[in-house]
Amino acid sequence: MEFSEHIKTANVEDVVLQQPLHPPSRGTLCITGHHLLFSDREEESSRQVLVLLRNIDAIEKRVSGSSGTIIIKCKDLCVLQLDIPGMEQCLNIAQSIETLSCLDRVVEMYPFFYRPSNAIPWDQWGLSNPEKHYMETEELHERWRLSTVNREYSVCPSYPPAVIVPKAINDDALKKVAKFRQGGRFPVLCYYHRKNGMVILRSGQPLMGANRKRCMEDELLLRAVIEGSDKGYIIDTRSAQQAQQARMMGGGFESKSCYSSWKRLHRQMERGKTLQESLIRLVEACADMSHNMDRWLSKLENSKWLSHVQTALSTAGLLAECVERDGHSVLVHGSDGIDSTLLISTLAQIIMDPSCRTLEGFLGLLEREFVQAGHPFQRRCAHSAFSHARLQQESPVFLLLLDCVWQLWRQFPLALGFSEALLLRLVTEAYASNYGTFLCNSDMERCALEVKNKTHCLFRALLKPRERQQYTNPLYEHTKLAIWPSVHPQSLQLWRGFFLRWNQQTRHLEEVQEEIKNMVIEWGKMALS
Amino acid sequence: MEFSEHIKTANVEDVVLQQPLHPPSRGTLCITGHHLLFSDREEESSRQVLVLLRNIDAIEKRVSGSSGTIIIKCKDLCVLQLDIPGMEQCLNIAQSIETLSCLDRVVEMYPFFYRPSNAIPWDQWGLSNPEKHYMETEELHERWRLSTVNREYSVCPSYPPAVIVPKAINDDALKKVAKFRQGGRFPVLCYYHRKNGMVILRSGQPLMGANRKRCMEDELLLRAVIEGSDKGYIIDTRSAQQAQQARMMGGGFESKSCYSSWKRLHRQMERGKTLQESLIRLVEACADMSHNMDRWLSKLENSKWLSHVQTALSTAGLLAECVERDGHSVLVHGSDGIDSTLLISTLAQIIMDPSCRTLEGFLGLLEREFVQAGHPFQRRCAHSAFSHARLQQESPVFLLLLDCVWQLWRQFPLALGFSEALLLRLVTEAYASNYGTFLCNSDMERCALEVKNKTHCLFRALLKPRERQQYTNPLYEHTKLAIWPSVHPQSLQLWRGFFLRWNQQTRHLEEVQEEIKNMVIEWGKMALS
Repeated sequence: MEFSEHIKTANVEDVVLQQPLHPPSRGTLCITGHHLLFSDREEESSRQVLVLLRNIDAIEKRVSGSSGTIIIKCKDLCVLQLDIPGMEQCLNIAQSIETLSCLDRVVEMYPFFYRPSNAIPWDQWGLSNPEKHYMETEELHERWRLSTVNREYSVCPSYPPAVIVPKAINDDALKKVAKFRQGGRFPVLCYYHRKNGMVILRSGQPLMGANRKRCMEDELLLRAVIEGSDKGYIIDTRSAQQAQQARMMGGGFESKSCYSSWKRLHRQMERGKTLQESLIRLVEACADMSHNMDRWLSKLENSKWLSHVQTALSTAGLLAECVERDGHSVLVHGSDGIDSTLLISTLAQIIMDPSCRTLEGFLGLLEREFVQAGHPFQRRCAHSAFSHARLQQESPVFLLLLDCVWQLWRQFPLALGFSEALLLRLVTEAYASNYGTFLCNSDMERCALEVKNKTHCLFRALLKPRERQQYTNPLYEHTKLAIWPSVHPQSLQLWRGFFLRWNQQTRHLEEVQEEIKNMVIEWGKMALS
Repeated sequence: MEFSEHIKTANVEDVVLQQPLHPPSRGTLCITGHHLLFSDREEESSRQVLVLLRNIDAIEKRVSGSSGTIIIKCKDLCVLQLDIPGMEQCLNIAQSIETLSCLDRVVEMYPFFYRPSNAIPWDQWGLSNPEKHYMETEELHERWRLSTVNREYSVCPSYPPAVIVPKAINDDALKKVAKFRQGGRFPVLCYYHRKNGMVILRSGQPLMGANRKRCMEDELLLRAVIEGSDKGYIIDTRSAQQAQQARMMGGGFESKSCYSSWKRLHRQMERGKTLQESLIRLVEACADMSHNMDRWLSKLENSKWLSHVQTALSTAGLLAECVERDGHSVLVHGSDGIDSTLLISTLAQIIMDPSCRTLEGFLGLLEREFVQAGHPFQRRCAHSAFSHARLQQESPVFLLLLDCVWQLWRQFPLALGFSEALLLRLVTEAYASNYGTFLCNSDMERCALEVKNKTHCLFRALLKPRERQQYTNPLYEHTKLAIWPSVHPQSLQLWRGFFLRWNQQTRHLEEVQEEIKNMVIEWGKMALS
C-alpha cells in the first residue's frame, strides 16, 4: 500500500492543539503514513507532539462554518483536541487518521519501518524462551525434557517451537494430547519451584465433549507430572457450572474418575468482552468531571474493574499457595488457555519467584508467559477504551496483568526491581509501538512475517543503560520470600498512575520518583568517590 | 477520686492477647488508674502492649464457662482481644475499663500525672498565639491591633485572651459586636496574606434573628476590614437555606442591604452528628472482611466520608482563591464558628502560605487555629467510631482536617515539611494523650485548670530532636507557590494510612518512608564528611 494515497492533506498551518493541563498552542499539523505531528510555532514555548497513528483508538470530528475540530482519543487514554481551519482540510485529516490508524496488514505497521539510531544488533532478539529457561533450570533435567514437536507450529499454532514436557511422554503422545486439548495446547511446564520441586503447567481445556471422551496420553502425561507425589491441583479459571456447560460445545474438564490424583479448583475469572466493557466503563467514569463523589464511587463500583483485579490477584495467590505452601504441582487452564491462564501463572511466578521481580526477570517472564505462550496481542489490543467499533476479540488482559503487578508493587514497594514507569510504558507499547515485540497473535505469525528480522525488540531496548536507569526501582531490595498480596477490597486501589495519567496529580508522583532516584544516584556517586 | 476504688482485680496471669497480624501471645494483664498493660511471658518474643485507658472507645465482653473475652476497641481504631481465665476477673477488668476510660473530670486525666523523663521546662508551653502572630507580622501594625478585651474570657468564652482586630474599632465596640455574634465570637483576623495584604477573618454567625436585628458596630467593623478596597467576601459554611432557617433560632447572616460591600457565598458543609455518623459508617466498612469489592465500594460511598473531604478541600480552595487570586479579604463563619469555620480557614492557610507547611509552622497553625481558636476538643473527641454511647457533641472535625491535609500531602509530596506519621500521631493524641494540649474545650477552661502549669505540651514535645527527625518529610522542598489541590473525586483517596492503619499493608509504606529517610540521613552524613 502507498500511504500517500490516503493523505490528501499532509500539512495544515494554524492548527490549535488543546490538551488538559496544557495551555492551548497554535502550530502546524503534519500527517505521515504512521504519525501525526504537531509543532508549535511560538519560539519561546516550542512544543512538539508526536502521535503514532496506531495509538489512536477513536476520533470525533465536528465541522462548523469554515473550520473543524477533531478530538483524538488515544489507546493510552490521552485525549487531544485539534481545531483546524478549513473544513476540507479537517475532513481530509480525519479521513487519513481513520484509515491509517487501523491498518490491517501487520507488515505495513510502523515497527517494520522504525530504525532507531542506536539499534541493537538483529541477532539479539528477546531475552528468554523455553529453551533458555530449560537450560538454566538444571533441576528440571532429570524428569523433564525440551520437546521440539511443535517446531513447525503444526501441533499447536499458538505455542512456541520448543516447550518443556515430562520426560516420560514422547512426541507422538504429545501430538495425541494436543488433539485432546483446546487449540492444541497440551500441558506444558511454565514454572519450576526450586524450594520444593513443584511445578506449574498450563494448557487448553480437555475436549471431553458431551460424550465424556478420554485421552489416555493426556492422563498419562498428567500422571507423569506428579510422579512420586500424592496429588496435584488443577485450577480451572471458570466456574464449575461454566466448565460443565463447556462440554456441550466440545470442551470440558478433567473428571475425577479419569484424573483421580488431581483435585480441581474452580475460580471464575471474567475475560473477553466482559473485561473489555469493564475497561470502557472505568475509563468513562475517570473522564467524568462532574465533581460528584457519590457518582464517581458508584461508577467505579459499576465498572467492576477492581473486582477483576481482586479476582486475578486472589486466584494467582491460590495458585502460589498450592505450590509454595501446600507443596503441590498445579495445572492451570480455562477454555482457551491464552488469557486468564497466562494472567494467573504470570502473577503467581512474581509472587513466588524473586528472579521474576528484577527488571530483566520480569521482562523475560512477560516474554515467555505472554508473548511466546500465545497471548493474541494483536486481537486483544486492537482497540482500547474509546473505540465505537463493534467489539471483536479485544480484551484488556495484559492491562489487567500490569494493574495487578502495580498492586503488588504498591503493597511491596521494595520487592520489585522495576518502577511504575515501566508498567506504564508496557501498556502503551502493547497497544501501539515502534517495536515488533507485541505484533501478531503468536510465534507462528511472527515467524511467518519475519518479525524478528525486520523489527526491533522492545525488551532489549528497555534494558539499554538509559532506559534501564529510568525503569529501575531505586528502593529495590532483593528478598527471597514470597510476596503474598493482600486481596481485601480495602487493600486494592485504582491504578491512578495509568487511569488518570493525563491528570495533573500523577505528575507530582513522578516528581517524587525523580527525587528519590536522584538521591540514590548522588548517593552512589558519593559512595564511590 | 481514688482510682484504686475502681480496680478490684489489678493483675491477671495467663491472659491471651489477640490482635490482627500478630500471633496470639500469652502473658500478664495489669490495670492501673490510666493504663492497661499486657506483658508477654515468653522470653524470646517478649512483647508489651500499653494502652491508655482514655484511648478505649468501647469494649465488648463475652463470658463462657469459667473464662471470658474482652474486645477492646480503641479510639485510634486499634482492636485488641483479651481472653481472660476466670469469669470474675474478666468482669472486674471490664468494669474497671468501663469506668476509668471515661473519667469526667479533666484533672483526673492522665496528662495531669504524666511526667516525662526529659521534660521541657514549664515556661515553654506552646509555639504560637495571636500575640506572637501579631508581633511577627509587622505589615499588620498599621491597620490592625491586638485587643485584650477578652483577657478575662468575659467577652467571648471560647476565644483566647488576645485577638487581632481592626485598629479603627475599640474595645467597647468589640463588646457590642460580641453580643451580636454567636458565642460572642466577634470577627477576628486569623490570616494576613503578605502577597497582597488581604486577610481572612472568622467569627460566629450574626444574631439577626427573625426581626432582622442590626448592629452598627458589627457593620463598622466589617467596613473597616475592607477599607480602601472595593469589596470583601463572606464564606458562609451553610447553604443559603440553612442560613435563612437559622434566623428562626435567633441566628442569621449578613444581609446585602446592611453589608453592601460584602458578597456572601454559601457552601454547605456537614458537621456535628452527620460527620460523626459518617466516620462510624466508614470505620464499619473498613472492618468488613467479606472480600466483596462491590460491597466495599458501595459502603465507602454510603459513608460519605470522601464527600466531606471533597467539600472541605473545595471550600478551602474557594477561600484561598478569593484571597490569593481575586485579591479580596474574606470573613468565614457558619453558625458557631468553631468547627467547619476553623477547618477551612486552616486548610486555606496551608494552601496559600508556605510558612504553614513546615513542621513548626503547621503545629503553630493548629495551635492558633484549632486549640486557641476554641475548637471544643474535649466534646468533639469524647468518642471515636466504636462507641455505642448516645452521641453527644462528638464530631471528627479535627480528623477531617488531618485527612484533608493528608490529601494535600499526597498531591504535593514535596511541599509539606512533615510526614504522614505526624498526622497519624496528631489524630491519636487528639483522642487520648499523655499531653495537655488537646484537653478541655477552650483556653478559658484550660486556664481555669492550670493546664499549662500542670501538664506537658505536645507541640513542644514533637519538636524535640528525636521526634522531629521522625516527623520530618525527607523530600521536603520549600516552595513559595500556593498548592492548589485537585478536588475531583478521582483525585481524592481514602486515607488508608489511618483508616486501615492496623492492616499489614500500611507497614510496607512505613518501610518505604524509613528507607527514604535513611537514604537522606546517610546522604547528609556523606555530604558532611
